[in-house]
Amino acid sequence: MQVPVIDNLQYCNFSGKIFRQLREGGVDAIHVTIAYHENFREMVANLERWNRFFETYPTLIMRGTCAADVMKAQETGRTAVFFGFQNPSPIEDDIGLVEIVHQLGVRFMQLSYNNQSLLATGAYEDEDPGLTRMGRAVIAEMNRVGLVIDMSHSAERSTLEAIDHSTRPIAITHANPDWWHPALRNKSDTVLRALTNAGGMLGFSLYPHHLADGSNCTRQSFCEMIAEAADRYGAESLGIGSDLCQDQPDSVVTWMRVGRWTKEMDYGEGSAAAPGFPAMPEWFRDNRDWDSLRDGLHDAGFTAEETDGILGGNWLRFYETSFTAG
Amino acid sequence: MQVPVIDNLQYCNFSGKIFRQLREGGVDAIHVTIAYHENFREMVANLERWNRFFETYPTLIMRGTCAADVMKAQETGRTAVFFGFQNPSPIEDDIGLVEIVHQLGVRFMQLSYNNQSLLATGAYEDEDPGLTRMGRAVIAEMNRVGLVIDMSHSAERSTLEAIDHSTRPIAITHANPDWWHPALRNKSDTVLRALTNAGGMLGFSLYPHHLADGSNCTRQSFCEMIAEAADRYGAESLGIGSDLCQDQPDSVVTWMRVGRWTKEMDYGEGSAAAPGFPAMPEWFRDNRDWDSLRDGLHDAGFTAEETDGILGGNWLRFYETSFTAG
Repeated sequence: MQVPVIDNLQYCNFSGKIFRQLREGGVDAIHVTIAYHENFREMVANLERWNRFFETYPTLIMRGTCAADVMKAQETGRTAVFFGFQNPSPIEDDIGLVEIVHQLGVRFMQLSYNNQSLLATGAYEDEDPGLTRMGRAVIAEMNRVGLVIDMSHSAERSTLEAIDHSTRPIAITHANPDWWHPALRNKSDTVLRALTNAGGMLGFSLYPHHLADGSNCTRQSFCEMIAEAADRYGAESLGIGSDLCQDQPDSVVTWMRVGRWTKEMDYGEGSAAAPGFPAMPEWFRDNRDWDSLRDGLHDAGFTAEETDGILGGNWLRFYETSFTAG
Repeated sequence: MQVPVIDNLQYCNFSGKIFRQLREGGVDAIHVTIAYHENFREMVANLERWNRFFETYPTLIMRGTCAADVMKAQETGRTAVFFGFQNPSPIEDDIGLVEIVHQLGVRFMQLSYNNQSLLATGAYEDEDPGLTRMGRAVIAEMNRVGLVIDMSHSAERSTLEAIDHSTRPIAITHANPDWWHPALRNKSDTVLRALTNAGGMLGFSLYPHHLADGSNCTRQSFCEMIAEAADRYGAESLGIGSDLCQDQPDSVVTWMRVGRWTKEMDYGEGSAAAPGFPAMPEWFRDNRDWDSLRDGLHDAGFTAEETDGILGGNWLRFYETSFTAG
């Protein structure tokens, strides 16, 4: 049995083309975002779209709800697709929806996107008052049912409090250390130490705004950053959450940033001069470039075993203990 | 392994008291109605209420989604609870919701309640034009995912067309033959022959409006009717769907009849003089009286094996082939 390749965050404009590229790249599982600002009913419509994908492409993809599905996908030559939210808007103000969305197969939920949510604070707010009352209640419920807390877009204090309040390890599915590239969305050494000390996982992002030198970031720089993170936090806590947004029109990044919360334009990590999706680095264009990442990790000094862990084995271990009732 | 007792239709005002009575009566599984006129989001709120029940009463009840759960419930001394709708309103006008509600554990859906729906005609309409275009599409989708078509409240032509159009056996979960008691909601010999010839199941109702002599119906009359039905349709196609509405306030029967579709009062099977829930027959007050029914079937000439089938074994066999992808 080969150690599976898992990408723990993608938001592509999925299609038969991309599902075939996942197979070409040997990707056994992906965690895909199915909601940013959607309410419950709108999120369900997105799930319906995925059900149609599973019906249309049964030889390429399968619905993933537990760790065993990753290995089942590998054995049958398919990619298992796991669902997550980048914002808690689909659970509205209703804690009962935590179990419902878990029953529908959702396995990750960010407590906030860039703004304040009902649960926690996003990285773009001026003030971060920490977890809300509902935030603490929802963390306990997520712990109970096996829905993973993801703090990728949340602010520092809220993130530290979530790590502390959760009785189960949490995840930062797609971000990089801010000591490598000081973006608002990247994470402090304090957060990353607290996260990994509590058994949590960090998924490194390949979204250019999270990379040193953006789209021009070199593979060597990226992989040496991972080597430094392995020294600080242990290689077994590290994985990939590429944040690949392949084939999305720029209207989608506007939806991600603006939703329905403002009538003004908000450029998020972009700018008025460059409002759209940035170009991916040439050494990781899409799902066919996982071997390039493997070569880069080798060159940065990782053993084959460590590399296998970072490219999927560590996420698989995390899946094994995170998705069922606690 | 004992043949399980299954009641394939209840709409009680469930509580710890009723869950304890289910155990006292030795009921291994029930199919409960979780929606009449609710839209999708409202139905989900009802599911949330059931999730709270499962969390609160883990030693009495468990969520049932497949036939094996009936035996698991029996082995662990609990009652498995399966979900169904008496109207297709929770799938709104969206065929994608068929698979979504199945993923949420729903296993039965009536194509109509008493009125015309988007799919089929109810027994109280003046005209029955048969299955609609969406009705035919939804039957195919229900067949695909393993959601059982229930025509208990539907009109004659729609019911015959559903039996014919469905590629899998369907159910009439709670009704009686109209040759025994000619209520609008009871079923013709033609319908019952077509149903059972196609492998479908009939669940006998104990709701007084469906009984000869109403609340004064004798156990003997009820059980002799079942014996006649066994002669006509075969004992293996018969089960119970008691329609027990224990502890419901009369406001609930008004909701069932009127929903939001009219501003007038509609008394359904009741009347202005007797608008509320009728009293149950004294020999079947609640879930503690299943032995009484067993005795009655014995007195009507059924063998122990046939009685086991009618009280649960036949529904179990139907569950085994009906709830998974076709």
